Amino acid sequence: MEERTEIDSLGEFGLIDYLTRNIEIHHASTILGVGDDAAVIDHFGKQTVISTDMLIEGIHFDFMYTPLKHLGYKSVVVNLSDIYAMGATPTQITISLAFSNRLSVEALNEFYEGVYAACDKYNVDLIGGDTSSSQKGFVISVTAIGEVTPMEFIKRSTAQKGDLLCVSGDLGAAFLGLTLLEREKKIFLENPQIQPDLEGETYIIGRQLKPEARQDIITFLKEKNITPTAMMDISDGLSSEAIHICKQSNLGCVIYEDKIPIDDRTKQAALKFGIDPTACALSGGEDYELIFTMSQSDYDKITLSEEISVVGYMTDISEGTHIITKGGNKHKLQAQGWNAFKQ
Amino acid sequence: MEERTEIDSLGEFGLIDYLTRNIEIHHASTILGVGDDAAVIDHFGKQTVISTDMLIEGIHFDFMYTPLKHLGYKSVVVNLSDIYAMGATPTQITISLAFSNRLSVEALNEFYEGVYAACDKYNVDLIGGDTSSSQKGFVISVTAIGEVTPMEFIKRSTAQKGDLLCVSGDLGAAFLGLTLLEREKKIFLENPQIQPDLEGETYIIGRQLKPEARQDIITFLKEKNITPTAMMDISDGLSSEAIHICKQSNLGCVIYEDKIPIDDRTKQAALKFGIDPTACALSGGEDYELIFTMSQSDYDKITLSEEISVVGYMTDISEGTHIITKGGNKHKLQAQGWNAFKQ
Repeated sequence: MEERTEIDSLGEFGLIDYLTRNIEIHHASTILGVGDDAAVIDHFGKQTVISTDMLIEGIHFDFMYTPLKHLGYKSVVVNLSDIYAMGATPTQITISLAFSNRLSVEALNEFYEGVYAACDKYNVDLIGGDTSSSQKGFVISVTAIGEVTPMEFIKRSTAQKGDLLCVSGDLGAAFLGLTLLEREKKIFLENPQIQPDLEGETYIIGRQLKPEARQDIITFLKEKNITPTAMMDISDGLSSEAIHICKQSNLGCVIYEDKIPIDDRTKQAALKFGIDPTACALSGGEDYELIFTMSQSDYDKITLSEEISVVGYMTDISEGTHIITKGGNKHKLQAQGWNAFKQ
Repeated sequence: MEERTEIDSLGEFGLIDYLTRNIEIHHASTILGVGDDAAVIDHFGKQTVISTDMLIEGIHFDFMYTPLKHLGYKSVVVNLSDIYAMGATPTQITISLAFSNRLSVEALNEFYEGVYAACDKYNVDLIGGDTSSSQKGFVISVTAIGEVTPMEFIKRSTAQKGDLLCVSGDLGAAFLGLTLLEREKKIFLENPQIQPDLEGETYIIGRQLKPEARQDIITFLKEKNITPTAMMDISDGLSSEAIHICKQSNLGCVIYEDKIPIDDRTKQAALKFGIDPTACALSGGEDYELIFTMSQSDYDKITLSEEISVVGYMTDISEGTHIITKGGNKHKLQAQGWNAFKQ
């Protein structure tokens, strides 16, 4: 039988001690980490970047198909993604959790294994947090802290007319991964004898359960001396994020459907489900790729990159926000991205 | 009829815009606030202090007797208390919320009124956050950021043998306020005709529903040139916190029962409930006073302060952690503070 230690048996402080026993500190700027009223971070002529996200069981994840280790990893990564989207380097995180007694210490430990794996991969220090009981459901709140050379952070509001609109990686896979997992859950609930059929779908499932933050894109842009004029991460779908940049920069944009990067495995999965792959990219969400604008004069520097696609360009605000379909039709972009309050 | 705007009608981003429409920025160090992937904070030779706390409906608060405005205020204050407990000055906060559709926009707005009131009072900037739906219950996660002159923050682990053990203000009232509110709730649930009897109990109720962080004590200590050797805030009761400082400083302590500051209104309420007031101070929790240790040589500087009480002193670890009762008996201190996992 699997080991199960009741959380009660440790108490809150014992639990924190247990979960943080293997913390490694990576940054000289981490002066004081877990174990006091607050953590302390040093700065040497840098600016601090802070971002925070909350993940709620039943809204953002489902334990039926989300391994705890993946959940820990993803909770960190989605926050780091926001820090990279500022053009900054994440350095520290805090994690607060609320959970009911139905979770064992071993389960929590698995969650933290994922957290530590992400901390190691992205070179960030876990410096604090809070644990609490909940009456029902698992709640995760992560705050990520990063640093940036003064005034070199990249906002959403500073795109320029005529700039190229670019995205990293490929889009739509995470949504299809979720669709597949939800379908298999439904089948399983109706008939627990049927084993899930996830054959050949590891790409889209991986994109849903274990997303990565695009540190490599930030590094690439720096190496190529490209300063995006605006940037954000794609958590709610390309459409919603492009509209954010347009609205905050007081501009319009045109996106070309045939330029939107979609992996073949995503296309095949979309076909199976009878969903338009472009719709998945535009409104699917959770891709955690980067969307950014840059001067046309930087175009030559990215032509050899397979990880960056130019999907359109920025226009005057009077031209609105549109997509030109493969058939040549022009449609208004709809921000029907994943909206937590309209489910 | 009271106005009620459904959260759905605004959508997530409309809601954030609405709730943050009146944000005022107090600090030059707040370079970028709400509205991007992350906030940006500047530093000029300071160190950053970060603390985070999560509050869960049904565990930390009950809407039956917690006005939303007070809840917003308290959510901020309990985090600022941790920053002050580091000897630092809070400068910014982020707030993440999860809530179900049963809450209206007006209700959320009331919550934020309390948040902004605390931000104004304590001179901090709200710089970001996240809102999400929840299946059930209201969840609040606040991260507070502060600054401190390099290496002048005050830890829990640096108390010295022979130091005086001090507390600010008075203890035990918040717990009795909670006890009273819980009693009235029970009576109301059993017979909704009976109006709550809170006559003459505004002090203990105020201490429970609208605690303050002891900024004034930090200012006083600086003015008097007193550097506490260790400090933390009292959220789980004097006993639990004194044991924390002892454990982390590798020391023991002696506390004198007759030196523990308890307000007369607290004593009277305890008497009514048939609870020992000392037990409320030792294990009640939520007082958000400061506990600190300081050198005996600083004693003369605090004798005139009515807001600081010397309750005991630090001993060698071999002497353990004890309380000397009014009757002269010696008992081991019990860390039976408010333990979220043993309710």
